[in-house]
Amino acid sequence: METFRVLEVKQSIFEDNDRDAEKLREQLREQGTFLINLMSSPGAGKTSTLMRTIDALGDKMKIGIMEADIDSDVDARTISQTNAKVIQLHTGGMCHLDAEMTRQGIEELKADGLDLVVLENVGNLVCPAEFDTGAAKNVMILSVPEGHDKPLKYPLIFQVCDVLLVNKMDVLPYFDFDLEKLKEYALMRNPNLKIIPISARTGEGMNEWTNWLQSQIDEFKK
Amino acid sequence: METFRVLEVKQSIFEDNDRDAEKLREQLREQGTFLINLMSSPGAGKTSTLMRTIDALGDKMKIGIMEADIDSDVDARTISQTNAKVIQLHTGGMCHLDAEMTRQGIEELKADGLDLVVLENVGNLVCPAEFDTGAAKNVMILSVPEGHDKPLKYPLIFQVCDVLLVNKMDVLPYFDFDLEKLKEYALMRNPNLKIIPISARTGEGMNEWTNWLQSQIDEFKK
Repeated sequence: METFRVLEVKQSIFEDNDRDAEKLREQLREQGTFLINLMSSPGAGKTSTLMRTIDALGDKMKIGIMEADIDSDVDARTISQTNAKVIQLHTGGMCHLDAEMTRQGIEELKADGLDLVVLENVGNLVCPAEFDTGAAKNVMILSVPEGHDKPLKYPLIFQVCDVLLVNKMDVLPYFDFDLEKLKEYALMRNPNLKIIPISARTGEGMNEWTNWLQSQIDEFKK
Repeated sequence: METFRVLEVKQSIFEDNDRDAEKLREQLREQGTFLINLMSSPGAGKTSTLMRTIDALGDKMKIGIMEADIDSDVDARTISQTNAKVIQLHTGGMCHLDAEMTRQGIEELKADGLDLVVLENVGNLVCPAEFDTGAAKNVMILSVPEGHDKPLKYPLIFQVCDVLLVNKMDVLPYFDFDLEKLKEYALMRNPNLKIIPISARTGEGMNEWTNWLQSQIDEFKK
């Protein structure tokens, strides 16, 4: 028996995404739900980072996860092993989520009463960066095997994010990856970007990440 | 001094991409230029695989490379160290190339007289798969760190590709990556897909890949 719903989300027909995003952000503000938009390349470790995050914060607050995918329920199935509420969003081939699709997910998740909701966006460094989902904060994961030159090639996503989690730090010795160069390139795109090296496998850096998240939620709830 | 040009490519205003693609394929057929459309996630190793490919085939045939990127010349700069002709295509934020953008690149590259041209598409598993570029063959790179579940999540790109290169085999011991499961999932999407495990770093599998490519070009030239 499935422990999560699957929702086929539809793009907004009105196409004023910025207005839709502001409206959703206002609604979430009123109901006290902190929404994170989590973006990365395919396979950078969004779901495993979420598993660690739920493990660290799941006893202190009510968490909901929206897993967006073109097709498949792989990630929702994984998250459903935790105490977080989870829903799978299918985008029907779409390469990103807009604010209206996010709103449909929030409604179906029945997010009222949840302290933190994370939208796991489609694995893609290009299109998701172009659409405000209505989230309070945008978070990006870049993994060590992808290389430190990515801020040069995918500028926008680094500009729109508040936090950059540099995942798979445990395999750093096996790759030509220069963390200092990554920081330099990323801060060139966005001087306010908070950069936290982590390993979702070993747990490295997860305290710094979840402490940041907790402090943001505390601030939001004030 | 730059050894390559940078071209700002524009999307077709006619929007009959399939017709444009057929037209370009016919033109390339007539001039005897074999075009490969190379797709992958960001950081899967497209450029380093191309470096190895040029190294293996560059003395036997005339090769041209079109490096597509949203912004930056990082990859064209790398390729310009080889004896291949290279051009950088800037997509101006676009997440993929269509046939008209490819045609503009072919024209600027002056591809007439080249035996093999490789279009390195924007790093993205979603959008590039939706647009026929006019290439004779589509090739995809998936790297070990991305995980073996990708054919479940990004079905279309596996369906449209002729060859799947599984890169970064040298780091297999450090990841939970099941090559047999990947093959099973990928062949489920596309039973005709040729799957070649490689390492652009160590050279593993490069013979099988370049032999395949050589045989395809020989066939094409007949």
